[in-house]
This record gives sequence, C-alpha cells and structure tokens, in this order.
Amino acid sequence: MPQLRLALAQVNACVGDLDGNADLVVEWTRKAAEAGAHIVVFPEMVLTGYPVEDLALRESFARASIDRLTALAGQLADAGCGDVAAFVGYLDRDEHGKRNAAAVLHGGRVAATQYKHHLPNYGVFDERRYFTPGSNLGIVRVHGLEVGMVICEDLWQDGGPIAALGQAGVDLVVSPNASPYERNKDDRRLPLVARRAAEAGAPLAYVNLIGGQDELVFDGDTLLVAEDGTLLARSPQFVEHLTVVDLDLPGGSPRTDGQVGDFAVTRTTLSEAPLARYEPLPAPRVAEPLSDEAEVWHALVTGLRDYVHKNGFRSVVFGLSGGIDSAVVAALAVDALGADSVHAVSMPSVYSSDHSKSDAADMARRTGLHYSEQPIADMVAVFVDQLGLTGLAEENVQARCRGMTLMGLSNQHGHLVLATGNKTELAVGYSTIYGDAVGGFAPIKDVLKTLVWDLARWRNDEAEKLGELAPIPENSITKPPSAELRPGQVDSDSLPDYELLDSVLDEYVDGDKGYHDLLAAGFDHELIDRVLRMVDKAEYKRRQYPPGTKISEKAFGRDRRLPITSGWREG
Amino acid sequence: MPQLRLALAQVNACVGDLDGNADLVVEWTRKAAEAGAHIVVFPEMVLTGYPVEDLALRESFARASIDRLTALAGQLADAGCGDVAAFVGYLDRDEHGKRNAAAVLHGGRVAATQYKHHLPNYGVFDERRYFTPGSNLGIVRVHGLEVGMVICEDLWQDGGPIAALGQAGVDLVVSPNASPYERNKDDRRLPLVARRAAEAGAPLAYVNLIGGQDELVFDGDTLLVAEDGTLLARSPQFVEHLTVVDLDLPGGSPRTDGQVGDFAVTRTTLSEAPLARYEPLPAPRVAEPLSDEAEVWHALVTGLRDYVHKNGFRSVVFGLSGGIDSAVVAALAVDALGADSVHAVSMPSVYSSDHSKSDAADMARRTGLHYSEQPIADMVAVFVDQLGLTGLAEENVQARCRGMTLMGLSNQHGHLVLATGNKTELAVGYSTIYGDAVGGFAPIKDVLKTLVWDLARWRNDEAEKLGELAPIPENSITKPPSAELRPGQVDSDSLPDYELLDSVLDEYVDGDKGYHDLLAAGFDHELIDRVLRMVDKAEYKRRQYPPGTKISEKAFGRDRRLPITSGWREG
Repeated sequence: MPQLRLALAQVNACVGDLDGNADLVVEWTRKAAEAGAHIVVFPEMVLTGYPVEDLALRESFARASIDRLTALAGQLADAGCGDVAAFVGYLDRDEHGKRNAAAVLHGGRVAATQYKHHLPNYGVFDERRYFTPGSNLGIVRVHGLEVGMVICEDLWQDGGPIAALGQAGVDLVVSPNASPYERNKDDRRLPLVARRAAEAGAPLAYVNLIGGQDELVFDGDTLLVAEDGTLLARSPQFVEHLTVVDLDLPGGSPRTDGQVGDFAVTRTTLSEAPLARYEPLPAPRVAEPLSDEAEVWHALVTGLRDYVHKNGFRSVVFGLSGGIDSAVVAALAVDALGADSVHAVSMPSVYSSDHSKSDAADMARRTGLHYSEQPIADMVAVFVDQLGLTGLAEENVQARCRGMTLMGLSNQHGHLVLATGNKTELAVGYSTIYGDAVGGFAPIKDVLKTLVWDLARWRNDEAEKLGELAPIPENSITKPPSAELRPGQVDSDSLPDYELLDSVLDEYVDGDKGYHDLLAAGFDHELIDRVLRMVDKAEYKRRQYPPGTKISEKAFGRDRRLPITSGWREG
Repeated sequence: MPQLRLALAQVNACVGDLDGNADLVVEWTRKAAEAGAHIVVFPEMVLTGYPVEDLALRESFARASIDRLTALAGQLADAGCGDVAAFVGYLDRDEHGKRNAAAVLHGGRVAATQYKHHLPNYGVFDERRYFTPGSNLGIVRVHGLEVGMVICEDLWQDGGPIAALGQAGVDLVVSPNASPYERNKDDRRLPLVARRAAEAGAPLAYVNLIGGQDELVFDGDTLLVAEDGTLLARSPQFVEHLTVVDLDLPGGSPRTDGQVGDFAVTRTTLSEAPLARYEPLPAPRVAEPLSDEAEVWHALVTGLRDYVHKNGFRSVVFGLSGGIDSAVVAALAVDALGADSVHAVSMPSVYSSDHSKSDAADMARRTGLHYSEQPIADMVAVFVDQLGLTGLAEENVQARCRGMTLMGLSNQHGHLVLATGNKTELAVGYSTIYGDAVGGFAPIKDVLKTLVWDLARWRNDEAEKLGELAPIPENSITKPPSAELRPGQVDSDSLPDYELLDSVLDEYVDGDKGYHDLLAAGFDHELIDRVLRMVDKAEYKRRQYPPGTKISEKAFGRDRRLPITSGWREG
C-alpha cells in the first residue's frame, strides 16, 4: 500500500498575533519537513488564534488574515518546506460573510480551502454570530492519496461532512480543532474520533490547540485513530508537541468532483506519483491521559501562565492569608511562573489569627516566593472611624483595604494582581466586591472549594513522590476555613457544609437543574432554597469578577449568561 | 367593510417575574376590554420578560412559562376578558427545543401558538443560542377577519413570514416586539413597518416593550401603519400606553390551511360572525417622536430607574465632583428617582479645587438631592505612606479611597452605588479600576463625552422652557474637564481634544473600522495610533465595569465582545 508520513503540530497560538502565529507555522512546518513528513496539520484558526471573538467582525482583521495566509504560503516555500502540504486554519471572508476556514498551503501557494460547516453557538461558543457555514469539501491528493478535512465541530455533529467524505472516498481525514479543556471532555474525544474514523472509512487525525486564552485553556490531546478504532498516536496534554507517524493507505485513482449529499466536493492534486517504498518510523508515542487532578492542575497552570505572559506581565502579586485558597493559588503561580515572579503579601488585621501569619510564612519558605507583610489596621481604622461603619460594612472595609493594598503594589511595581477566590464563593457571593475580588486574573475561579482541597493534597503528594518539599502547609489544608473578618468567624457560620454546598452547586450551576430536580435528587428543601437564593443574588458580583480559567462544564463567564435583573425564583 | 377594535399594549415587563408579568397582562387586557377592544397585542415574550438569556436553557423555567401561560388564559376568562383575543409572548418548548413563542389566548384557553422564525444572533442578541426557529404561521379568525402574526426579527428580515402571510391572505398583521432602544433606530422602524404592511397587503400593528433590563432599555414606539403606508397610530416613547383603534377591514371567507412557501399555515376560528356596525372611536393619537437629546435622556432615565427599582433598591449614592459627568448623573438620578432618593457625596482631596466643592454644592441646592462631604486626605495618606506610593499609584489611591467611601456608605445605608464614567473614558481607559469605576450601575456608560455636554445643555434648556431652575450649574458645563488627581491636571494633558477623540471612537468602536479606514476618513495617523492603542489596552478594565444603559449602535458590554489577551494591532 502507498505510504504517507503525517505530522500533527499541537501548538500554542496567540489570538490576534498574525505574525507570531505565522512564524509558529513556519517553525513547526520546518520541524515536520526535517522529520520527513509529507503533510503537517495545525489546529483550527491557528493563524488568527482562537477564539478571535468580535475581531472576526472587523473587515481590517479579515483582510489581514487572508493576506497573511497568502504571504505564509510563500514564506513556507522560501523556508524550503514548499513540498510539505500544510493544513492551516485562518479567518476567511467571501461575498457571503466571514468564514472559519482552513487552507492547504503547498508549493508556495494556497492550494485548497475549506469552510467549517457546523458552527457551535452554545456554551462559550458564539460562532453563528461571526461565521457563515460552508458546504464545500476540498479534498487534496498527495502522492496519489486522497486527504479530506473536517473542522472541529464538524466532527462532533452527527451527519454532515464526515459522512460525505466517507461517501466521496478518502484515504485519510485530518481535523484541525480548537476544543477548550473541560474536566472529563478528553474521555469523550477518543470514542468520538474512533466512530468518525469508521464513518469516514479512513484513519482520522485530530489536532488540537494548547495554551490559555482569557477564560479558556486548550489541552491538546491530539489523536490519530485508525479506521478500525485503533489508537495510533496521542500527544501529551498542555505542551506543544509534534507527532510524526507513517501510514500505509489504500490509495487508488482520483475520483471525480461533484455534489455529495449537501456538500460540493472539489479535488486538488498536489502530487500524483505514490512515494517509493521507504523504511517507516517506529510507531509514535501514545501518551497516557493525565489523572483528573493532574489534568486540572496543568489546565490551571497553563491558563495562568499564558494570561500573564501573553498580556505582557512578568510577575504576579496576591494576598496570602494562610488559608487554602491563597495557598493553592500560590502553588499554581510558582508552578506557572517560577518563585521569583511571585509576590505574596500577608495583610493581617486585628482579627487575624497567629496561624494565618505563620501558615503564610511557612508557604513562602516552602516555595521560595517573595513574601512581605502589610498590616491593614491603620487603613481600616481611618475608614471605619470617618464613615462610622459597623457590621458587614466594617467587614467589607477590611477586604477592600487589602484589595487597595494589592492594587497599590501592582501600580507601583507592575505586578498583575491575582484574585484568590474559588467557584463556591463566587457562586454564593461569599466574597467582597472591590475587596478579595480585586485582580486581573482569578486562577481558581472555576474550582469548587472541595476540589481546591483535593488539588492541594494532590500537589503535595506529587511533590513527595518526587522527593521534593510539599509546597502547601498541612495546616492550610486541614484547618477550618475562615474569612477572619470578625473574632472567631468560620465559613460554616454563613455557609452550609462545603461537601453539601458543592453538590448543590454542581446540579444548579453546572447542570442547570431546577428546584424540583434538586428535591428529587434528595436535597433538603431549606438547603436548596438557601443556596439558590444566594446564587441568584450574587449575579451582580460575578459580572465584575476578573476572568479565570474554565475547567468545568459550565464556568461563570460567557459560559453562563444570566440577567442581573430577574424576578425568577426557583421553587 | 367589517370592523375590528384593536388594542396595542405597550407595557413594562420584568425578566423572570412570571406572576408579575401575568398580572400585567390581565390588568392591560382588562383595560382593553373596558375600551371595547376585540383583540389586544402585547410585546414579545411579555410573560417571561426579554431577554431571559440562559434562563431559556433551564427546563424548570420553560415548564413554568408554559404552565403560567395556560393559567393566564383561565385568569383572563375569570377576569371577564375571555372574549378578547390576547396575543401574549412567552417561552415555549417542544421536542425540537426551546421556542420564542407567542400565543393567542381566548375563551379561557390557548387558542393558537406561533414560533419566531428569524432568530437574531448579532449585537446584543444570542437567540440562536437558545431557540429553535419556527416555520408555522398561526392565523386566527376573529369576527370573520383573518389576523396573522410575525414576531420581532421576522419583521426585520426580508422574505420569510411576512411574504407568506401576504400570499396566504390576511386582513391584519400584528407583531409583538422586544426591540431595544438605539439612537436613531426609531427612524428606521416606521419605513420598515410601512414596507411590511404593503408586502402583507394589510395594516400592520407593531407593539414594543418599554423599560430597562440590565444594559438594555426598550422605548416602545408602538406603531400602526395601513397597507398604503399611512401612519394610523404611534404611542409615546418610554411610557406604558394602551392605543385603542378601530379598523375597517376587508374580510371574506376563511381560506384553507396548508403550506405557503417555507411555512405551514394553520387557521383557527375564534369567532365567525362579523360585528354589527358600530360607531368607531376617534382616531388615536399619533405621538410625535422625541428629539434626539430628549430620547437619549428618557432612555437613560428609564434604564436607571428600572435597574434601581427592579433590583429592589430605593436610593442611590455617588461621588459628586463638580465636573460634568457626575452632574449629569445627578440630574438623571433626580429625574429617575426623585431628589429624596439621591445621595451625592463630595470627596475632596488635597488637589481638589475650590470650584469643585462649590459647583457640587450648587448642584445639590438646585436639585434638592442629599449632599454630604467626606474629605479623603486622611485615607489617602495612610496608603501612600505605608506602601510608599508615587506617581500613578498615588493618583489611583485617591480614586480608590473615593470608591471605598461610596461602598462603605452603600453597605451601611443600603444605597446602590452609581459609577459616573462616560463612554469616552471607558473606551480609552481614562478611569481607575476599583476607583471611579466602582458601582452597581453606570448610567452614562454608553454616552460619549461630547454627548454628555449636549445632554447637560439640553436638560438645562428644558428646565428653562418649563420655568424651572436649571439643574446643572453652568460652571460644571463650561469649565475644562479635570480628574484633579495632581496639581493643575486637566484631561487634555492625557487625552486628545474630546471632539476629535469622540469622532475617532465613533468610527473605531461603533463602526468597527480599521486603521486604514480611519486614515481614509482623514484622521491623522499619530492620533489614530494613539487612540487605538488606548482603546485596545483598556479591554480588561471594561470587563469589570458595571452595567449601564445602551443607547448607541455598539455599547461596551455584550454588544462588543473582544478578547483581553490579543496580539492584534491595527496599523
């Protein structure tokens, strides 16, 4: 059977950086060429980054993307990679509108183009806002082999392009993707890709982005699956990676163009003669998927690192209270940026316990991050005295003096401020707006409190397995959580038990379940009432909260769009 | 010709408040019945409010909407209005998904139902996220007259339901709408409705919501246009209003059901016998559209009032600096809520000029709002001294001490905090996050600086026309704008001339124009460069800014969705 060497380029593109992303394509196509590959596949919209959001509406951006693609074709040829067929995603525009497109670059020119057919418009996706769906399939013939393509969602929806490719007849299907990470999503990808490979009657190469983009993080998890469902290659998650693999494919005469179902099939021959038989490479690595906690940890580290670096920051600052949330944020920041880029500030008040300060200092010693102390008593006093504040107003002033302190240090020294709140707090509004909610980025915004504890334990275990010092003080993990805004306060004064609370939130927020569904699931009606009221009332706080990495099925942010003004009450 | 008395109910629904909205439908149907109307038309999704956003995805909410609709049909009959055919928008759900629907309630039951066909998914709209498009047309026969319906966007898109109704043959078309206010949009509605009436070959009644919902405000502007384009009725903007009008309509035998183009037409007879000839009412009022400034002013007042009241607040607090922005916010708040609900705080620093304090006090005297003074010198000193802040960090601390003061007063006294920033500042990032950006609502968020001045002058002129005291001190309008964060500072130190700046912003933000378009429009390349960089860099601040009423073609918020992390630079 004819042979073909395929390279799958799992790379980290940056939204809007057309020149940087074009350079990335040149660099990795060169690597593919050096490895002897005949085709190289990049992720969806690699040239523009993903998602470009309303940049897609801007004519100047679409024009730049198209011009940059043409220039890139030339650049690849100039770099000596003109023989490699490079599948490159970009933003296109024709008389029907903007297009989520991918082109095949070959011999210094744009040899073929295809538009995405199924446009996701749910969850974090707004593609119907931007793109016109395509109904063309641009099959290219490489060394006598027929290579078809489907873009991301076209793989997830039943029917459509895959079935048409199966009917048209192809030797190989490649699929550029920009599929954001979600806990457990990777468990669904492999069976899906296997099913589609069977439908297409050909091996299927799934190539995904890696890296962080505002609230999204892409995990890669690039896959190659044979027609019979055999997993031939899997790239490690959250790192740039080139998988190079030799395939024996059936081949045959070029079939005719024309309409197949809803799709107009065009065929472009890049090279006709089959390759002379060569010694194939050893089978590539099939990476083991990460464990659940490891995967979440890497997602959070990647999301944080890319937000910081892609936005031009070199360091971060945040409040280190000795509690579990800020301890986990500290450990993430050190893993993401290195201890020397991490500045933690202990900001004790008159209500702060001794262990708050000692646990924070212990964390600093364990990780080597920069640590300083700024007591807030004098700041708090002047507001409380001048304005005559009591009760909740006084509690909030403490949180806000801390927020102002961090912003002052950020303005003075150029650090990005991190908010250390978790998803449970954000859900029920157990945070102070302009106080602990202050920050440019919120690394654990989408992590429920119980998962924060699990991650802390997992990270410490990992350290111990490697013979390293555990980064997080045991005391930060085991002590009862407290905001320490009044004497002897603990979270359980104001909130249900966290195990129970997180179970309700999982159903109500992630699952969009209603009151009666929750009753049916066995939760107590007073608990349901209490939690749902808290969640609904806190919408205004969430609107002003900083972005943070999505890891769950439904993250606060553009994944969950609820009105602030609402008379709806479940019950 | 047979007669029919039609009532158009331009009402203010609240998102999610199914019971409250159902009561509203009963109350206004009763008014219509008392006026002898045979049919009454309510706005789009009046039962649920609009837009319900992700509530539409929640099964419990869809079920409640359907159940509430059925109950409402009974409630109308019980209230003695069962003879009136009431066109009521609601959220429906069938085996194909959720539906943006409107029903005809008559005789105690749901007599007919229709689903929206064209689902807007641009600007502030995300309807493809929620709804499955319909392709049914439910024509009802009332006193021997054929009444068809099209829902909102179905009116705006060429082809589709209107053409089908024209072909099927109807005597009257009614159109429930939830069309948010935008400057100049009402100028486009009348010609559109006239064109559609001609296409349908029947008079067309356009009924729109009024009231504020988070960032949107609906202006009403309910219209009735004859087949020949004659404007028969127009309701005043921004107020609840019932227009009752008698029509002579051709009538004829009921035509058959069936497929018309893409649409399945079903006909339901509510009553067959034509009405005995009666004395028609005098022709209703054709309200004059408001002037541009008046319209914007009413939009801002309505948006603010409804945000405050629908969220359960009774009073507002904000910083009154003596400058133009806070003066306009103060005047809006007094118009929206009454002076007794408005609390303004002067928060002078060591850099504040004497006229700042005297202009603020003058504003308070003119309007009767509650006024107090809280100097911030002591607060600022403790942060600056303890943290060693200089330059911009010191400037920002002043703005943040003001923000904290307002939040403290809000927490202590229950006022909603208003942010007083305008669209120009928000565009170029000329504001301090967690400082002057603090607030639950930002009334002039979508008002460019030059329009802020125009509105101030217009509002004072209006007062003078009515023989009232002008609310805004002349000095606040005429003095050079300054943030007063360092000695002698004026806005023009940091920003281009506001006339020029606003012209660039209008093209770049509202018009989505690129660098070369701006050059072609005659702007200087250095100015373009400077403004575009400022706008792009401030995206992170806008993400955390409070909501505020949209009045422009493209407001910051869900109307303009740009990435924070972006390598794209126009140029």
